[in-house]
Amino acid sequence: MPASGTAVSQLTTAVESSGGSVTGLDVTASGHEKLRIDVTIAATSTAHADEIVEKLRGIEGVSLGKVSDRTFLMHLGGKIEMSSKHPIRNRDDLSMIYTPGVARVCTAIAENPEDARRLTIKRNSVAVVTDGSAVLGLGNIGPMAALPVMEGKAALFKRFAGIDAWPICLDTQDSDEIVAAVKAIAPGFAGINLEDISAPRCFEIEARLREALDIPVFHDDQHGTAIVVLAALTNALRVVGKAVGDVKVVMSGAGAAGTAILKLLLAAGVKNAVSADINGVVHADRPDLVDAAPDSPLRWIADNTNPEGYTGTLKEAVVGADVFIGVSAPNVLNGDDVAAMAQGAIVFALANPDPEVDPAVARQTAAVVATGRSDFPNQINNVLVFPGVFRGLLDAQSRTVDTGMMLAAATALADVVGEDELNANYIIPSVFNDKVAGAVAGAVRKAASASVTAPTSA
Amino acid sequence: MPASGTAVSQLTTAVESSGGSVTGLDVTASGHEKLRIDVTIAATSTAHADEIVEKLRGIEGVSLGKVSDRTFLMHLGGKIEMSSKHPIRNRDDLSMIYTPGVARVCTAIAENPEDARRLTIKRNSVAVVTDGSAVLGLGNIGPMAALPVMEGKAALFKRFAGIDAWPICLDTQDSDEIVAAVKAIAPGFAGINLEDISAPRCFEIEARLREALDIPVFHDDQHGTAIVVLAALTNALRVVGKAVGDVKVVMSGAGAAGTAILKLLLAAGVKNAVSADINGVVHADRPDLVDAAPDSPLRWIADNTNPEGYTGTLKEAVVGADVFIGVSAPNVLNGDDVAAMAQGAIVFALANPDPEVDPAVARQTAAVVATGRSDFPNQINNVLVFPGVFRGLLDAQSRTVDTGMMLAAATALADVVGEDELNANYIIPSVFNDKVAGAVAGAVRKAASASVTAPTSA
Repeated sequence: MPASGTAVSQLTTAVESSGGSVTGLDVTASGHEKLRIDVTIAATSTAHADEIVEKLRGIEGVSLGKVSDRTFLMHLGGKIEMSSKHPIRNRDDLSMIYTPGVARVCTAIAENPEDARRLTIKRNSVAVVTDGSAVLGLGNIGPMAALPVMEGKAALFKRFAGIDAWPICLDTQDSDEIVAAVKAIAPGFAGINLEDISAPRCFEIEARLREALDIPVFHDDQHGTAIVVLAALTNALRVVGKAVGDVKVVMSGAGAAGTAILKLLLAAGVKNAVSADINGVVHADRPDLVDAAPDSPLRWIADNTNPEGYTGTLKEAVVGADVFIGVSAPNVLNGDDVAAMAQGAIVFALANPDPEVDPAVARQTAAVVATGRSDFPNQINNVLVFPGVFRGLLDAQSRTVDTGMMLAAATALADVVGEDELNANYIIPSVFNDKVAGAVAGAVRKAASASVTAPTSA
Repeated sequence: MPASGTAVSQLTTAVESSGGSVTGLDVTASGHEKLRIDVTIAATSTAHADEIVEKLRGIEGVSLGKVSDRTFLMHLGGKIEMSSKHPIRNRDDLSMIYTPGVARVCTAIAENPEDARRLTIKRNSVAVVTDGSAVLGLGNIGPMAALPVMEGKAALFKRFAGIDAWPICLDTQDSDEIVAAVKAIAPGFAGINLEDISAPRCFEIEARLREALDIPVFHDDQHGTAIVVLAALTNALRVVGKAVGDVKVVMSGAGAAGTAILKLLLAAGVKNAVSADINGVVHADRPDLVDAAPDSPLRWIADNTNPEGYTGTLKEAVVGADVFIGVSAPNVLNGDDVAAMAQGAIVFALANPDPEVDPAVARQTAAVVATGRSDFPNQINNVLVFPGVFRGLLDAQSRTVDTGMMLAAATALADVVGEDELNANYIIPSVFNDKVAGAVAGAVRKAASASVTAPTSA
């Protein structure tokens, strides 16, 4: 912009009149006639930021250089790094960390492979594995575009549970190749966290890896979600004073998360569950299920739910239900549907960013409402679960993760909310509640240690 | 030990009389009659330490608890870790590092995959991949026992070149499975460092991966060794005043390192090379080569070396040679063999820990002697090479690594030793010389940037 005149004040005025706030302004280059200014502006959304940028572009005499965004700046060069725990200052350090000293450590592990959990990073390392086929709500964007999520996940593993996780983004979406690759890389890790792999492949991949590996395999989209939902439901039922064995639960969504939630709810004592997908309520006589393979996920749902024999739509099934859990799509229910539920209704509308029903509308008749959003009470967030679950598994040196451990994790997470704290707007703790990871880890460690000799299943 | 009496002084006396030094002594538990003492002792070797421990065990009234070792203590829990570059303090941080903000970064990469090198760890990440089939001098100890070496390597990548490397220890020694696994994990990395994979599989695996991947694949045991040997030879030839095109080079060892050294020496201008392995000098009429496949590594050697047509033993070939390079086994030559070499002989005896010929004996007649050992001048150490090579490749965003880049790396490394510093006992800089990595990186970056459109080979 011109060095003289009112250009600078025009700029700040333009930002403020657009509803933005100038939070910083630096002159980064200056000449006799021209100034280059770095201006930092707080905006409420990307669209709002674009609007402000357009306004700035319109100021006479100002030419706009580079526009950055603090989220992108934070991701520049990646969000995680590898570091050495020991300084390497001289040959003496080198001779211990590397050759020749390292040879003695290798020999010790060759003689006793269990020592790898004592003398290497294996003890505390988790692979965060994806094929990029179902990333957030973005769909099949591929392994490279999924990397920022996996890095973020790794950062959360460290922040909340001190775990060293490394992203492994696979250049294949073939189940056999994924299974082979994960089996191949397993020796260096003590756990595998599968992430953002689309259904139904995720079920088969997980089952085959669990069978093949001697380290726990956890698909966070399934089991992490299931655990946090069960914890939230446990506390929501406390709020409304109903027992888990008595309630009718209606679910929308029969993908990875929906199926895993359903299985964990049944394991936790739910007797009356009804599951619906885009084709309506799942039942054995539904056209697409008549010829389904006996081991297909939908077939399993048909055989294990819907005791009252619904054959119609989600909206019909939800009438009189005590609990609605949606992991599907925006706006599948409206306020009338929620009003038709039983007294003391519980609504978990977890589709993100747009829930199955507007939470404000649902709250008019439902007793408890939760979403996946951070701008509404009762956020159902996997970050409450996966760090603690893996901490517990690693501490127990568990070779598997089973339903018992998941139930223990859900109970521990629910119990972080004290009786004196519990209410309809606080059924689940904040992700920054520093008791969460330790409570979950302790419960999982205890359950894992107890189940060492028991048969495993999940 | 007893709290009273002379037990403590007996203990320190016992250590000192065994030639050890007590460097620390702590009372860690005490009662009326007994003391528990932690004593730290410097010993010269593992055998010496064992000897001291036995002596301590013999002291009347002393019972020995746990014996630790500083190298093992350094490896406890692993030597590297993952860390987040940004603090995660609140929901605002979380919303940028993870959902929902991360989705915008993912979308940007999905739209422009090259942005992965800007917005993710890919830019600075290298996978250190092994199958544990040829670890140090320990042989086929498997992937888990190889992990301490790979961690050490990762630590060195960071220390010397700021690179984030993560160990990938593969639970397979099948070439097809190794190639498939490395291809699968490639999207998250900008380079692959193969490590400690046995010959001849390593040749095929590397060639197939180079063909398949759009990131550089470097087998350090081959190419790292070849580069540092060429750098050292370049300076050794300066010391003795001979030209690379005029010398007769005799090699012992035709495995991974031997073959790679040979190829790079030929590329650097060596015209007269003779290679020997356990069956003697390699030549086309040798019984094991007559029926060898045309693309077998030994066949390649036979076709490209030995212009004078030797058919006998290493010892016969080495008579009158200017240069001997051993990457094979201890004591294949003696002082008489070295004495039979040409005037101004150069001997690189790199077998570790026991060289092909005693360096002190070789030095009696040879002009320049180098080994792989840290207790003798002129240590040929790959640490001088791989950090800088990868730094250069990553900085150039190179999709390959070719012979031109390797020659450039060797020249740059040789040139770190100034004309005024060069002498028979200083042909190669120390690994802690802080000019090394930058010089190698700069040369490789320049060569890589120049070769972007050139055909690749190595």
